[in-house]
Amino acid sequence: MMANSKRPHVVIVGAGFGGLSAAMALHSAPVDVTVIDRHNYHLFQPLLYQVATASLSPAEIAQPIRSILRDQTNARVLLDEVNGVDTAKKIVRTAGGQRVAYDYLVVATGARHSYFGKDHWEAHAPGIKSVDDATRVRGKILTAFERAEVESDPAKRRALLTFVIVGGGPTGVEMAGAIAELARQSITRDFRSITPHCAHIVLVEAGPRVLPSFPESLSAEAKRALEAKGVDVRIGVAVGDITADAVSIGAETLPAKTVIWAAGVRASGAGQWLGSMVDRAGRVVVQSDFSLEGHPDVFVIGDTSAFKGPDGRMLPGVAPAAKQAGAYVARVIEAHACNWIAPAPFEYSDFGNLATIGRQSAVADFGRLKLKGLVGWLLWSIAHVYFLIGFRNRAIVAGSWAWSYLTYQRGVRLITGTDETMMREEMRDAA
Amino acid sequence: MMANSKRPHVVIVGAGFGGLSAAMALHSAPVDVTVIDRHNYHLFQPLLYQVATASLSPAEIAQPIRSILRDQTNARVLLDEVNGVDTAKKIVRTAGGQRVAYDYLVVATGARHSYFGKDHWEAHAPGIKSVDDATRVRGKILTAFERAEVESDPAKRRALLTFVIVGGGPTGVEMAGAIAELARQSITRDFRSITPHCAHIVLVEAGPRVLPSFPESLSAEAKRALEAKGVDVRIGVAVGDITADAVSIGAETLPAKTVIWAAGVRASGAGQWLGSMVDRAGRVVVQSDFSLEGHPDVFVIGDTSAFKGPDGRMLPGVAPAAKQAGAYVARVIEAHACNWIAPAPFEYSDFGNLATIGRQSAVADFGRLKLKGLVGWLLWSIAHVYFLIGFRNRAIVAGSWAWSYLTYQRGVRLITGTDETMMREEMRDAA
Repeated sequence: MMANSKRPHVVIVGAGFGGLSAAMALHSAPVDVTVIDRHNYHLFQPLLYQVATASLSPAEIAQPIRSILRDQTNARVLLDEVNGVDTAKKIVRTAGGQRVAYDYLVVATGARHSYFGKDHWEAHAPGIKSVDDATRVRGKILTAFERAEVESDPAKRRALLTFVIVGGGPTGVEMAGAIAELARQSITRDFRSITPHCAHIVLVEAGPRVLPSFPESLSAEAKRALEAKGVDVRIGVAVGDITADAVSIGAETLPAKTVIWAAGVRASGAGQWLGSMVDRAGRVVVQSDFSLEGHPDVFVIGDTSAFKGPDGRMLPGVAPAAKQAGAYVARVIEAHACNWIAPAPFEYSDFGNLATIGRQSAVADFGRLKLKGLVGWLLWSIAHVYFLIGFRNRAIVAGSWAWSYLTYQRGVRLITGTDETMMREEMRDAA
Repeated sequence: MMANSKRPHVVIVGAGFGGLSAAMALHSAPVDVTVIDRHNYHLFQPLLYQVATASLSPAEIAQPIRSILRDQTNARVLLDEVNGVDTAKKIVRTAGGQRVAYDYLVVATGARHSYFGKDHWEAHAPGIKSVDDATRVRGKILTAFERAEVESDPAKRRALLTFVIVGGGPTGVEMAGAIAELARQSITRDFRSITPHCAHIVLVEAGPRVLPSFPESLSAEAKRALEAKGVDVRIGVAVGDITADAVSIGAETLPAKTVIWAAGVRASGAGQWLGSMVDRAGRVVVQSDFSLEGHPDVFVIGDTSAFKGPDGRMLPGVAPAAKQAGAYVARVIEAHACNWIAPAPFEYSDFGNLATIGRQSAVADFGRLKLKGLVGWLLWSIAHVYFLIGFRNRAIVAGSWAWSYLTYQRGVRLITGTDETMMREEMRDAA
């Protein structure tokens, strides 16, 4: 597939925060844009844990890429998976057999889980990066309660009601808080044999504190808030092994049927396609304008890239950083296409850090201003709803949250898909 | 698993309209109730076609059975799949290895598709009975447009943009109307190479008219309304064969990559478990109180049973009939458990028939009163929202409809799950 016009063709791989921001910032540039993604939707990943804990539906945090770019006449969307790049011939190859020629290439393919070389843990400790991951984890959590309800052996029942979250970053903290509330508030009266309230929710962080990217005072507040919700927070201990039935944490082996991975991420495989230098986390090392050394027409942004600012600090792997990088790269490309002078060096505007610990509790770090508790939570809610793409999604998410807040109920407690089948098979095997 | 008390144990298999209605009507009866379902949710099946056409999310028309029965202290819920009944020992066997003893058994396991002996058609012409069916069909429809966008062969592109719905009952009519609106209004500006507006949507009905259960005047109105939306309605012609690439309709072979089955249903396999007499559609033939001949403690209701009223008419396979039968059977059981006299014979209250043909158009039959067009559509909308279980669902569905109505947009255009993988493989094979 070739661009039909003589205008430069910008190919953007990945429609996450970075890629979409680049595409949208090119709306009036004299270029043709093709956005390639293997999903047909843009996903608001910061709220994915709420899909995994039955608060939101996938469609509430996802929007078709085509709708977002509908009115941008210089952009087209290709639903396909990129599996290679020929930087010499300037061609992107896809799994669907397309060969897409580019003049400028923006790679923004994000990150996936990393099990630090213990890939066999993945089967027992799924992570949450995609919609399918999240609905799978949702089914796993809900199924554990269902299986516990019919389990007569107390030890097995205990293992079914033990939930271990590995990793104390924002996702781990948010998951632990949300599972604790699910068990202690939302479903507590739904069962007859078990007491969901007594579920054991364990958050394991190998480092010295949860939320390591936040100031120490807020880490301490997050730990306190989690413990108030009944989460067993273990810091400074590493996970030694994960099997189908147990997790070893330090010297202890804890029987647990549900383990969720929120510990490590690794950049997508873009470094291999590009044959470029990557850091330990697989991120492509980029120049000061996000381009590849020796390839001024190839840019890598977001979680896929390792970008060091003029102050020597790495750009963090968060949504605002990816969006800003996308917009910056669009300006670099537009300047090049128009023969303008290159834009001033990229400068990251850090608007602060937010993490929620469930209903009525969150921590927010805006440098000198630090918020926690209800005020932090209200700010977190408003910020997340505000940044959702699409008015419908904002209204529906706000409505779902209001309903959950007023009633303590989770609206999306569905066990669906292949995991429903799997769950039945497991129950049969166990019987 | 045995009931622990000495009160009679009522086991209800299936938490559709019939089973749930029976369970809820027993709320104050001196019995213990166990509801067994293979899904953890009750599904509002009349709106499932809106999940398949990207208007609603699964969670908007599904509610956890546990939440519905939360406050009914004499009821418990078992998530499991029944695979046998021993009517002599009065035991239900499940796939999860449970053996549940009953004093009264209510079987309400619904129906599934029937391909009239052509089971190999199923792979090419999926039907819509479950949440997973609906998300699969949604992915299939959306993927057809995506594939057409990158297809350069005009004949193949035409086949990708041809959608055939087999069966002119309410589901077929609703699907055809919804796909026509999706193509002609919702996504028409989202593509660059194809014109979704020109999609060819064909509704095939072997009988002499669509909506055969409605009066002839409303059938004619429905056909007219469908044609006004651009649907090619073919009546009086049978489908001869369905392959991956084409459908033969009468003498014509129409190349089509998307075929949806809305033609025949067959009762679930309950007749085999019970070893009882079934009719041609696999429905269990029941007595005037919905019990099995020779088994006054076993009742079969809803789409699983063939019930002939005193006037000789069969009870129709619709939600209100199943709900009324469930409530009636609960009264029969309560009377028996209390040693009261048996209730008066069942009488079906027919509140009328409703079917929608998309935005602003529906037909309603209330005997002497017949409505169509916008008035019918408003009534259809209000009735469906009203009968949804759960205030949250009502509010969210009403909100989603209002948004779709005002903007022509579909909020749930996600391609997810295994079909996403399948779609990519198909694209690769095709390339």
